[in-house]
Amino acid sequence: MLRYRLDLEYDGRPYVGWQRQDNGVSIQEVLERAVFSFCGETVVVFGAGRTDSGVHALGQVAHIDLAKTVAPETVTNALNYFLRHDSVVVLRTTLVDGEFHARFSAVWRRYEYRILTRRAPPTFERGRVWHLPGGLNAAAMSRAAKALVGRHDFTSFRSANCQAASPIKTLDELRVIRDGDRITVHAKARSFLHNQVRIMVGSLKRVGDGSWPEHAIREMLAARDRTKGGPTAPAEGLFFVAVGYASDDAR
Amino acid sequence: MLRYRLDLEYDGRPYVGWQRQDNGVSIQEVLERAVFSFCGETVVVFGAGRTDSGVHALGQVAHIDLAKTVAPETVTNALNYFLRHDSVVVLRTTLVDGEFHARFSAVWRRYEYRILTRRAPPTFERGRVWHLPGGLNAAAMSRAAKALVGRHDFTSFRSANCQAASPIKTLDELRVIRDGDRITVHAKARSFLHNQVRIMVGSLKRVGDGSWPEHAIREMLAARDRTKGGPTAPAEGLFFVAVGYASDDAR
Repeated sequence: MLRYRLDLEYDGRPYVGWQRQDNGVSIQEVLERAVFSFCGETVVVFGAGRTDSGVHALGQVAHIDLAKTVAPETVTNALNYFLRHDSVVVLRTTLVDGEFHARFSAVWRRYEYRILTRRAPPTFERGRVWHLPGGLNAAAMSRAAKALVGRHDFTSFRSANCQAASPIKTLDELRVIRDGDRITVHAKARSFLHNQVRIMVGSLKRVGDGSWPEHAIREMLAARDRTKGGPTAPAEGLFFVAVGYASDDAR
Repeated sequence: MLRYRLDLEYDGRPYVGWQRQDNGVSIQEVLERAVFSFCGETVVVFGAGRTDSGVHALGQVAHIDLAKTVAPETVTNALNYFLRHDSVVVLRTTLVDGEFHARFSAVWRRYEYRILTRRAPPTFERGRVWHLPGGLNAAAMSRAAKALVGRHDFTSFRSANCQAASPIKTLDELRVIRDGDRITVHAKARSFLHNQVRIMVGSLKRVGDGSWPEHAIREMLAARDRTKGGPTAPAEGLFFVAVGYASDDAR
């Protein structure tokens, strides 16, 4: 058995999310079917992050084990051929050693959340951006975001469905960047709680639109109570951007 | 009657092009229907450029005359409401004087052509980029493009359907810019012949992939014969980016 790392890009709109589910087609399932079409092997595709329905990826990482030995470029091209009617694309395939695990070997994950503040609705980014035509104070959001960076109990920023054993996470980065009528929120951490990025963005949005003062974010964190938090921002603005592995540094 | 300038963005894929046609829905028609739905007036929407089927716009300009006096923001919001199931968006509406004509007052037009050279197919830009996984020599394309800048007889770069009285045009700018695995060709002129940008790009692509030497572009121009030219690049990579008016400078 050889282990292959797959770097993936996908538009999450048509899918129920990363993980196999009974109520619709998942990205994992689409990939597992493509592997079967390609080489007849039934595999489990393990992903670094279980993105929700409608969430996109620019740099999801997954791994598969194949009995057959295949050149990595052949895996990329064959999977993309069988994925041609899907909005899932294999950017590259790399042979990795058997210790590598897309999920458990990851040492950081990076997400970005895209907001469009112009009056006119999005054209090319429909379903790929949160459209907030009222405008937002990005500077206030940026200041408020600082309260969340570091090691904290993120209970207030965790969905009721979150299965993580502990609500304690270390947020390495949370930056709010304005570029004209676009605002992007960049988040980096070893790992995130379920819906953490979307609840952080939904709460910062309340600061940005003036309905909350900046210090509300700090108080929400301290409350350790999801009911004190802001709303969960829509899935469509969220992109899983990159995953880091200790082995990457060694290269 | 008051005249309104509309700045438009659209994804050209679902349409037969800008202009009304019998064989399908045009962008012009979709806009004229939206105006009728909004205020009950039957108008003709005049556009600065008659983009072909599948060609996109980031900055098409059009004008309409309305009997009713309406605030420009109301026009924007109402049209976008009635366009919500289309991929056409009104970016802004401006009241202009009766002399303004979207097509005839234009003093320059700018297009860009987007090429993606990575191996993997496009995900988010499917139908909005020319995917050339073989890679291209952008530096050679950039040098060859210089032969086309200036006032020339562009017969070799003109579709058989072109209705322009003269094949003489002045190309103000033709730049080939590489950014990682993306190549963008920027073109600016007072006006273009039918398919001129796409034939220029299709010909430069032959230089980029090594099938033509750089000087072939200069010879093709001198031949004044469409059959000597390169192929027409696909519509999907072409974006109508901006239109300039003398009145803009005056502001």
